[in-house]
Amino acid sequence: MKMEALITCPDTKARAGRIQTDHGSMNTPVFMPVGTAGSVKSLSPVDLVETGSQIILGNTYHLLLRPGMEIMESAGGLHKFMSWSGPILTDSGGYQVFSLGQLNKITEEGVVFQSRLDGSKHKLSPEISMDIQRVLGSDIVMAFDECTSYPATIQQAKTSMQLTHRWEQRSLDYFRSTQARYGHQQQLFGIVQGSVYPDLRQESAKALVEMGFDGYAIGGLSVGEPKDDMYGITDVVTDILPQDQPRYLMGVGKPEDLVEAVNLGIDMFDCVLPTRNARHGIMYTWDGPVSLKAAREKAAHIPLDADCDCYSCQNFSRAYLRHLFKANELLVYRLASIHNIHFYHELMAAMRKSILDGNFSAFKQEFFARYNLKRAEVNK
Amino acid sequence: MKMEALITCPDTKARAGRIQTDHGSMNTPVFMPVGTAGSVKSLSPVDLVETGSQIILGNTYHLLLRPGMEIMESAGGLHKFMSWSGPILTDSGGYQVFSLGQLNKITEEGVVFQSRLDGSKHKLSPEISMDIQRVLGSDIVMAFDECTSYPATIQQAKTSMQLTHRWEQRSLDYFRSTQARYGHQQQLFGIVQGSVYPDLRQESAKALVEMGFDGYAIGGLSVGEPKDDMYGITDVVTDILPQDQPRYLMGVGKPEDLVEAVNLGIDMFDCVLPTRNARHGIMYTWDGPVSLKAAREKAAHIPLDADCDCYSCQNFSRAYLRHLFKANELLVYRLASIHNIHFYHELMAAMRKSILDGNFSAFKQEFFARYNLKRAEVNK
Repeated sequence: MKMEALITCPDTKARAGRIQTDHGSMNTPVFMPVGTAGSVKSLSPVDLVETGSQIILGNTYHLLLRPGMEIMESAGGLHKFMSWSGPILTDSGGYQVFSLGQLNKITEEGVVFQSRLDGSKHKLSPEISMDIQRVLGSDIVMAFDECTSYPATIQQAKTSMQLTHRWEQRSLDYFRSTQARYGHQQQLFGIVQGSVYPDLRQESAKALVEMGFDGYAIGGLSVGEPKDDMYGITDVVTDILPQDQPRYLMGVGKPEDLVEAVNLGIDMFDCVLPTRNARHGIMYTWDGPVSLKAAREKAAHIPLDADCDCYSCQNFSRAYLRHLFKANELLVYRLASIHNIHFYHELMAAMRKSILDGNFSAFKQEFFARYNLKRAEVNK
Repeated sequence: MKMEALITCPDTKARAGRIQTDHGSMNTPVFMPVGTAGSVKSLSPVDLVETGSQIILGNTYHLLLRPGMEIMESAGGLHKFMSWSGPILTDSGGYQVFSLGQLNKITEEGVVFQSRLDGSKHKLSPEISMDIQRVLGSDIVMAFDECTSYPATIQQAKTSMQLTHRWEQRSLDYFRSTQARYGHQQQLFGIVQGSVYPDLRQESAKALVEMGFDGYAIGGLSVGEPKDDMYGITDVVTDILPQDQPRYLMGVGKPEDLVEAVNLGIDMFDCVLPTRNARHGIMYTWDGPVSLKAAREKAAHIPLDADCDCYSCQNFSRAYLRHLFKANELLVYRLASIHNIHFYHELMAAMRKSILDGNFSAFKQEFFARYNLKRAEVNK
């Protein structure tokens, strides 16, 4: 998988390009809303298109447990099941097994875990994860890795990374030996691990590039480490990853993280923050996050952001949205999610434009001069 | 307020017409989705338009307690607050005081009750209710009445009805002495009471027609009485109400109730059933209600109703909707509500068409031949 029309910033590592899939292309840098259990929480496919979503993420772990692979297969895959005709990226299921599941056993073969829904036992391995992602029919498939827990000693991180490399080679071999089920091509991304240790991260990036994936992700960050480690490791890894292939920073992040990571050469992101925070009344604006539950919004008969062209800002006041939050009215979770997802996409589009215009550094400086990281707390 | 373009069925009391308000007209018979607390639960104004909603109902009681009249007034009324540009009918607040509130005192003057939200004390009277509905700025205002509890002895019902008549006269006098706040005309409907006693209902209908309202509602039905009483009372009352003015059966009802009541000459309905049932997975179809939570829908990769042109049926399968219900995914409450509200509007439109075509009786017969009242239970 090659980055098309790739433009690189003259004085940073920021890049703008295009990624093709059999379900359409996306302009990068790109943010992928998270469709955990077969829907991006509260949003319909039309909402996703109208907010500017180019690709969404589906979670193998959640879909494996419910509705299960029998249903997903008889539905003809995730695109048809959820009525989303654009690109989909699925994760391998590994991350959720380690973070959410009751992990029973981890061996060279793979992992055994219990469902958090009904206690039933399930297995995941590189081969099983590839089979599942064939059934889901995503456009971008993630290799099966072990997400190294944080903190980890260098020896723990190394042992985990080496297991990840063996699992990723098996993912690649098995993926190559199997066929797509629904007539469209799928691409496989490898995942760089190695915790916060630059040497391990370099070793991991080189090993994966050697194996030869369609794209490369950085995993195991945004798991509690200091921000400097997150940015430092990203910097180290993107120096090694091929220029002409996509780079995906998994599970990141806040708006400020996206700007920093684009600066370091990342193309793709996913995160539950914009939708999760929306459901709690934390709204993103160019001036920083705003809490719509704050008493000061009670009689604010003005849009959240008068310059925002999302459906919510075009039609509703802060006072109305606050009222709906206070009354626990279902409508507000959608209206707030529409705004936050739209904001994330606008941020990516603004970064892309500045890269194409050759002034990303100026954009970054202006963004941080205006964006107040702590504003939602101030507003509470 | 006159019914325009009124067509009456040759062999029943069914009517089709048009009602004008300053926020647009509606074709009758018409169903009004209930926007309890400033939103029709889970639906946006665009959703309402797309499902065919011509007018919505707002609840004075809920809006009085939250966000309160200060916010409603500074917002410029309910239309602006919730971004709904079509007609709105507001109730008087009385029904909820009697059914939901902690009623402290009822006197000739009005009622005192405690908020179920924070225990604060509030007063409602004919004059206060009119003032509130002026602030809300609804197109159709309901007179303040006492909703007679069921069951009631004939003496209790009579005493209650007489109080209602005095309150309704005060509502009318006060309404006439006050001005609309936002530059559009408001209309006032009277409410017929009298419990299940035909003599009282006749007396009440005659008294209200004598007072002279813009339209007439039948209150105090669908409160636990046998269906025969509901239909019988409706029949008695519509014999007395003026042919050329709108008739509204409050809080009714199930699809079968709507067909029976249109047959008896009712023009307007409201009910929370289509949205409330949607949130519990009970979906309306021409074959009767269906429970989408039923195990039999698990792998049903077909629309709820292949002939339905609502957004949900056009894009999603029963299996997908069932999955979303099982996973408690927010999206499904909206998708299910879209279908049920659309179904109600389609039912009204089909009745209207059959009245205009002069074959409502045949429509009614075919409806009941196909519609299975109990199907949702069978499907569980």
